Amino acid sequence: MAGIVALVEYESASPEVRAVYDDIMATRKTDRVNNFWKALANHPATLQQVWSEVKTVMAAGALDPLVKEMIYVAVSATNGCEYCTFSHTAGARAKGMTEEMLAEVLAVAALANKTNRLANGYRVPVDDVFLNPPQS
Amino acid sequence: MAGIVALVEYESASPEVRAVYDDIMATRKTDRVNNFWKALANHPATLQQVWSEVKTVMAAGALDPLVKEMIYVAVSATNGCEYCTFSHTAGARAKGMTEEMLAEVLAVAALANKTNRLANGYRVPVDDVFLNPPQS
Amino acid sequence: MAGIVALVEYESASPEVRAVYDDIMATRKTDRVNNFWKALANHPATLQQVWSEVKTVMAAGALDPLVKEMIYVAVSATNGCEYCTFSHTAGARAKGMTEEMLAEVLAVAALANKTNRLANGYRVPVDDVFLNPPQS
Amino acid sequence: MAGIVALVEYESASPEVRAVYDDIMATRKTDRVNNFWKALANHPATLQQVWSEVKTVMAAGALDPLVKEMIYVAVSATNGCEYCTFSHTAGARAKGMTEEMLAEVLAVAALANKTNRLANGYRVPVDDVFLNPPQS
Amino acid sequence: MAGIVALVEYESASPEVRAVYDDIMATRKTDRVNNFWKALANHPATLQQVWSEVKTVMAAGALDPLVKEMIYVAVSATNGCEYCTFSHTAGARAKGMTEEMLAEVLAVAALANKTNRLANGYRVPVDDVFLNPPQS
Amino acid sequence: MAGIVALVEYESASPEVRAVYDDIMATRKTDRVNNFWKALANHPATLQQVWSEVKTVMAAGALDPLVKEMIYVAVSATNGCEYCTFSHTAGARAKGMTEEMLAEVLAVAALANKTNRLANGYRVPVDDVFLNPPQS
Repeated sequence: MAGIVALVEYESASPEVRAVYDDIMATRKTDRVNNFWKALANHPATLQQVWSEVKTVMAAGALDPLVKEMIYVAVSATNGCEYCTFSHTAGARAKGMTEEMLAEVLAVAALANKTNRLANGYRVPVDDVFLNPPQS
Repeated sequence: MAGIVALVEYESASPEVRAVYDDIMATRKTDRVNNFWKALANHPATLQQVWSEVKTVMAAGALDPLVKEMIYVAVSATNGCEYCTFSHTAGARAKGMTEEMLAEVLAVAALANKTNRLANGYRVPVDDVFLNPPQS
Repeated sequence: MAGIVALVEYESASPEVRAVYDDIMATRKTDRVNNFWKALANHPATLQQVWSEVKTVMAAGALDPLVKEMIYVAVSATNGCEYCTFSHTAGARAKGMTEEMLAEVLAVAALANKTNRLANGYRVPVDDVFLNPPQS
Repeated sequence: MAGIVALVEYESASPEVRAVYDDIMATRKTDRVNNFWKALANHPATLQQVWSEVKTVMAAGALDPLVKEMIYVAVSATNGCEYCTFSHTAGARAKGMTEEMLAEVLAVAALANKTNRLANGYRVPVDDVFLNPPQS
Repeated sequence: MAGIVALVEYESASPEVRAVYDDIMATRKTDRVNNFWKALANHPATLQQVWSEVKTVMAAGALDPLVKEMIYVAVSATNGCEYCTFSHTAGARAKGMTEEMLAEVLAVAALANKTNRLANGYRVPVDDVFLNPPQS
Repeated sequence: MAGIVALVEYESASPEVRAVYDDIMATRKTDRVNNFWKALANHPATLQQVWSEVKTVMAAGALDPLVKEMIYVAVSATNGCEYCTFSHTAGARAKGMTEEMLAEVLAVAALANKTNRLANGYRVPVDDVFLNPPQS
């Protein structure tokens, strides 16, 4: 199925786009570039900015990369983004997410989506203790 | 600020509601019940069902409770649920989430919300490799 | 709390705005106009169009007005719209929605929000029978 | 099209999964199980929990099952969940929803989505009368 | 792929539906009617109302039609509406949107979706200056 | 009202945070920094990344800054982000958006939110002409 823009393949890419593709493949230790990047490559500045942000934000920090990928899956399922759900589930599995872990990610995301609407439907007032937390 | 329904306080609660409140306080080792539960208590069947689900889904499993709370925060921020954002951020902090970890949770959630729209705006076709993953 | 635009009160409204306010009050058999309409009145064409649509769509048809109001509440809770949740819950109560019915509206909305994410998170393929329903 | 997980068919299902499938078919008086349940069956605890909740929440109560299915359709359309829109529209039709009723469900959902954004875009302050309803 | 309802083709349409189709084609200077209208035609009142609103709201006003189409694309990408993203991107291109402009529309929409969640995740208090703007 | 994190005021900010604040004030020709940035400043890397992106993406390009601000308002209203709706409406007004233009921005956003749900509720199949656009 076609998208809104043509995908920019490596062969026909400009040097600046190729440089990003090369960095994606090197960073991820793979020889392919996902369609997402090939679509963004129609606007090299966006490609560079998004890749730079993904590389930085998804790297190990206070949270490990697997936890970050699972958060990504939960958000993508919440938003109903088909592409991101497929790609980040694959990414999380590649980092070690088991099927049991995936089931728990989605059970938590589903529960949060449910209670978010109960809280919003009843317009529950925020507890004072949350607004004025004890000082550390 | 008032909500859509009155909050059911322990003193005026029915025995079945009190039983849930008691279990919430015992499970969480606290002497207070959040407004969310006091709103749900107007419909005891909902109170019981939601508490049972929260207790089960958020317990330690293949994922630890802190990771689950952080996923909850990311989903609640995505949906813009004020109540749940306050309550689950407090819950995650109580389980050990540092300020650095919170910043990373929100940075990942923000990035996912951004790329979800780039993927959906360009209607990027899902890569065949995601649809037909190599068999294990 | 102030909003983005000033509210247009009846006293200072133009004749075309007053005509809509009069129709709202006559249709609803009340002597007050909600803030929503007073905000829209800053752009009379929007005020007229939205009121006309609300009046037509929410009137009795194949569905009765109470069912329509409850659908409105469920959608507003799903979207997290504070204003619409308060105003349409009030509207539904005025049309006969009991507290038990409200609890069921929100329980269904919450469940739908949950299963929507499970279906999207697992990217469940649509059953052929739904795509090719038996002809009547 | 493939999903994120394999579908668990009856033939290869465990006894606990078969028990849920049997209950789904008996409750719905049908001899087939939808793909949604076959996907959830990869995690039997989720399958059991979600089926139990659907069975309870969607049963006749203060609201009749058809009204509940129509609320489900409105929420699923709001969230853009393809699977749930197809399955619950079919479910509502099976319970008696006519094409005229479907059109009204979607007209109300569409209108609510529209006015939700007008209220949020103008940040209309909630009327005092909604926050302090007259006591019954 | 089939939808939820059959598409009403011109040949089999009632006179009232044909009148709307004729106006769509005349207004847009084209000889075809998009599937969206053919689906709505199952409920002529909805078809007429929606077309009338689209024709009025999307016409030149204080904003030019191209800007309006680009806003439509940004909202549709935000909501993940596949149909509307395809149709309104085509509409915006027909009105003069270049590929560079599309990329900027989506970069802004993506950024807004990101910062919306940072603001909501941190529950940033609205600045007083926004709530009490200097009077003009 | 308090948020989730303390706001970092200029006086108590680190040199790297002050450098961003200085750039925000210089770029916007103002002597104040909005609460949004003061919240992000709890995590300087996020502050720097988001400001850099906002500065670049919202600058004049193929689209002028006012059009970009109006797209931002439409997305923020769609997502129901109170903070961003207030701040970007103020930003758009500062760049020349009139009240008539604001009304049209919201009318388009509201209409898109409505038709997004009609398209999704009827699951309208995408027209072939959109999937296979005539080559330029």
